[in-house]
Amino acid sequence: MEAISVGLLGLGTVGSGVVKIIKNHQDKLMHQVGCPVEVKKVLVQDLNKQREVDIEASLLTGSPEEIIDNPDIDIIIEVMGGIEDTRKHLLKALANKKHIVTANKDLMALYGSELLTAASENGCDLFYEASVAGGIPILRGLADGLASDRITKMMGIVNGTTNYILTKMSQDGSAYEDVLKEAQELGYAESDPTSDVEGLDAARKMAILATLGFSMKVDLVDVKVKGITGVTEEDLQYGKQLGYIMKLIGIAHREGEKVEVSVQPALLAESHPLAGVNNEYNAVYVYGEAVGETMFYGPGAGSLPTATAVVSDLVGVMKNLRLGVNGKSAVSPQYPKKLKDPSEIYSKYFLRLHVKDEVGVFGELTSIFSKHSVSLEKILQLPVEEKGLAEIVLVTHQSSLKDYEDILSSLEDLPAVKTIESSYRVEGSGS
Amino acid sequence: MEAISVGLLGLGTVGSGVVKIIKNHQDKLMHQVGCPVEVKKVLVQDLNKQREVDIEASLLTGSPEEIIDNPDIDIIIEVMGGIEDTRKHLLKALANKKHIVTANKDLMALYGSELLTAASENGCDLFYEASVAGGIPILRGLADGLASDRITKMMGIVNGTTNYILTKMSQDGSAYEDVLKEAQELGYAESDPTSDVEGLDAARKMAILATLGFSMKVDLVDVKVKGITGVTEEDLQYGKQLGYIMKLIGIAHREGEKVEVSVQPALLAESHPLAGVNNEYNAVYVYGEAVGETMFYGPGAGSLPTATAVVSDLVGVMKNLRLGVNGKSAVSPQYPKKLKDPSEIYSKYFLRLHVKDEVGVFGELTSIFSKHSVSLEKILQLPVEEKGLAEIVLVTHQSSLKDYEDILSSLEDLPAVKTIESSYRVEGSGS
Repeated sequence: MEAISVGLLGLGTVGSGVVKIIKNHQDKLMHQVGCPVEVKKVLVQDLNKQREVDIEASLLTGSPEEIIDNPDIDIIIEVMGGIEDTRKHLLKALANKKHIVTANKDLMALYGSELLTAASENGCDLFYEASVAGGIPILRGLADGLASDRITKMMGIVNGTTNYILTKMSQDGSAYEDVLKEAQELGYAESDPTSDVEGLDAARKMAILATLGFSMKVDLVDVKVKGITGVTEEDLQYGKQLGYIMKLIGIAHREGEKVEVSVQPALLAESHPLAGVNNEYNAVYVYGEAVGETMFYGPGAGSLPTATAVVSDLVGVMKNLRLGVNGKSAVSPQYPKKLKDPSEIYSKYFLRLHVKDEVGVFGELTSIFSKHSVSLEKILQLPVEEKGLAEIVLVTHQSSLKDYEDILSSLEDLPAVKTIESSYRVEGSGS
Repeated sequence: MEAISVGLLGLGTVGSGVVKIIKNHQDKLMHQVGCPVEVKKVLVQDLNKQREVDIEASLLTGSPEEIIDNPDIDIIIEVMGGIEDTRKHLLKALANKKHIVTANKDLMALYGSELLTAASENGCDLFYEASVAGGIPILRGLADGLASDRITKMMGIVNGTTNYILTKMSQDGSAYEDVLKEAQELGYAESDPTSDVEGLDAARKMAILATLGFSMKVDLVDVKVKGITGVTEEDLQYGKQLGYIMKLIGIAHREGEKVEVSVQPALLAESHPLAGVNNEYNAVYVYGEAVGETMFYGPGAGSLPTATAVVSDLVGVMKNLRLGVNGKSAVSPQYPKKLKDPSEIYSKYFLRLHVKDEVGVFGELTSIFSKHSVSLEKILQLPVEEKGLAEIVLVTHQSSLKDYEDILSSLEDLPAVKTIESSYRVEGSGS
């Protein structure tokens, strides 16, 4: 039986893992698909670099065209990263009727629908399981496993770097900067950690999850993003005291036809299963109308975990090739995009303020909440070191984002309020 | 576009959920598959019974042949339960070229390979996602999501009734009999709970998981089973004191070419993600060579959750029908069955004994462990109410099952040992 030929764009961390798995699991792949699979060409930047994976020098090339335009290659695995050039490569490859497996979340978040449409028009498969939550088969879970359900909400810990940092801050009581430095030394954070700590990486994954889960084209710009750089040890400690764990949470929430997608550090009820997802692990909690609550947990990154997702997609493409049914699995969004207004986004909030320690101040505060019909679930008041000030920590009941923002702006105008120290969404503790 | 026609065998809890989902999600199904789906006939025991789901009386029938031999029906959904008669119905249906979706774990555990072979020979699909862990898409996760990996171990909480009972016993300190009675009143346990509390239900699911996950035909008789009826409050409390939570755990463990599959109440390290799976929830923890550790969590039973798994399978069959590729997804086992000997099954063990409170007894005990080269990780000694006796709780390091059984039998022969109170496998705490 003739082998199916694969071209790799990129041979970094994930690419090396893919080569290893294809080599080591040839028997299992053969058993599942019924024919061998062969890596034919690999695009690299530096032909002479020492590689951590054993690969024949003759397979390496510096020219993308040798893969994209190669008539002997059936499937292209894109693990090179990057956006604009990579997009052009893949569009050309699809025009050449090559099937594609990609791990590129940046690309899929920005150009996913363009690429999926091009794939569909050319009768090609385009699979991207590895782009979200590394080794966790969450996209398959949404597309196939929960195919008959309607998803109402997804909450995801989808960035390992920030989860590692927040876990350490919470467990050791260390400061953000110290843990970040430690994470960089251990290789859990990049030397430029911006995309992780500012929440952009998580936002890309949430755009992909929301698009698939809600069958609605959610773009990256639709995702409201806030990172973890402002999170303090005090916030984590106060959170704990009130029964919450701080996590960078991606939220995609549908009510009726309208959705909201956001990424932010949020306080999660400690009894919620996501609260136990620690260190560099990822998890996605899915609420379906019929199934109720399910969770998918696993490694969010890493060479071999991410490579398993890539090769599982590869198996999917190969099976379709053998059956002659490629290009039919992508389903275009069923619903038009409708985003919620701030007046339609409901949540609980945690708020920490420094106020003047004077008679009547607490009454002034609470009357602002009352005016917006927002009631308070938890209240904590403590003296602060600076004389004449008190620290107040509040957790509201459900409030619309609009009401809450109006409350924040009224509080800022109140002479008795010295500073608004911090404010977080509160999730996972019921209504 | 002509509708795809479905016949239901059974209209109980799950069957009613299936009818509801097909009715309520017609748009989504249509969007995914490209044609409508219609329930054509439903087999029921009592034509006149009041139904909790709205269904036309003309669709009901008391005769299985009206579905199995009906040329207008493409797909049969089997949610009637039972084994021998149901097996005959499904074999006949497959001979009639009907595709099958089943939620029947008893049947799949006993006759899964026979039915899958018959399906394959007739070019038919046979999907059974709902047979394991209700609403959790674990079988797809194993078959597709981790297709490129080799599974080394699966640990599952796959029975909701026993998990509910053990959770309540642990949280409230109640006795087994009291919690069982409460569970029966709440509908979490059947009036005859044997199959659940004796571990048989979990064993069936573990046979199905092991067969699929290891690509090896593991039969129900290969699964060693112990139920929870002997678990006492003392065991849970001592476990807690040493950092463990009691769970009914299904273990399927492969080392090299040999596997071990068992179900037993086990003490799980409290830091293990499975330890946080409470009440009636299910979860399966999967260890893959490449992916590392992943977990699938969700509702293990219930009308709508189980029905989502059934309808997701139905979507899979319908997609295959539209593509003309049915009967190709079942992969026959890749490896011959090889079971581990007791000398090859390694684990830690928790052991609680009552011994005579005399000089030298502890030395006699430990010399028995030493003779089998098994060392002890944790030791707890306490006085008991009965005069002259001491209670000893031990946790071993890794020991083969054979060594451990030899140790138990030597301990029983020791005059200083009054009773062996309890013994459990210990999991999730490393080597």
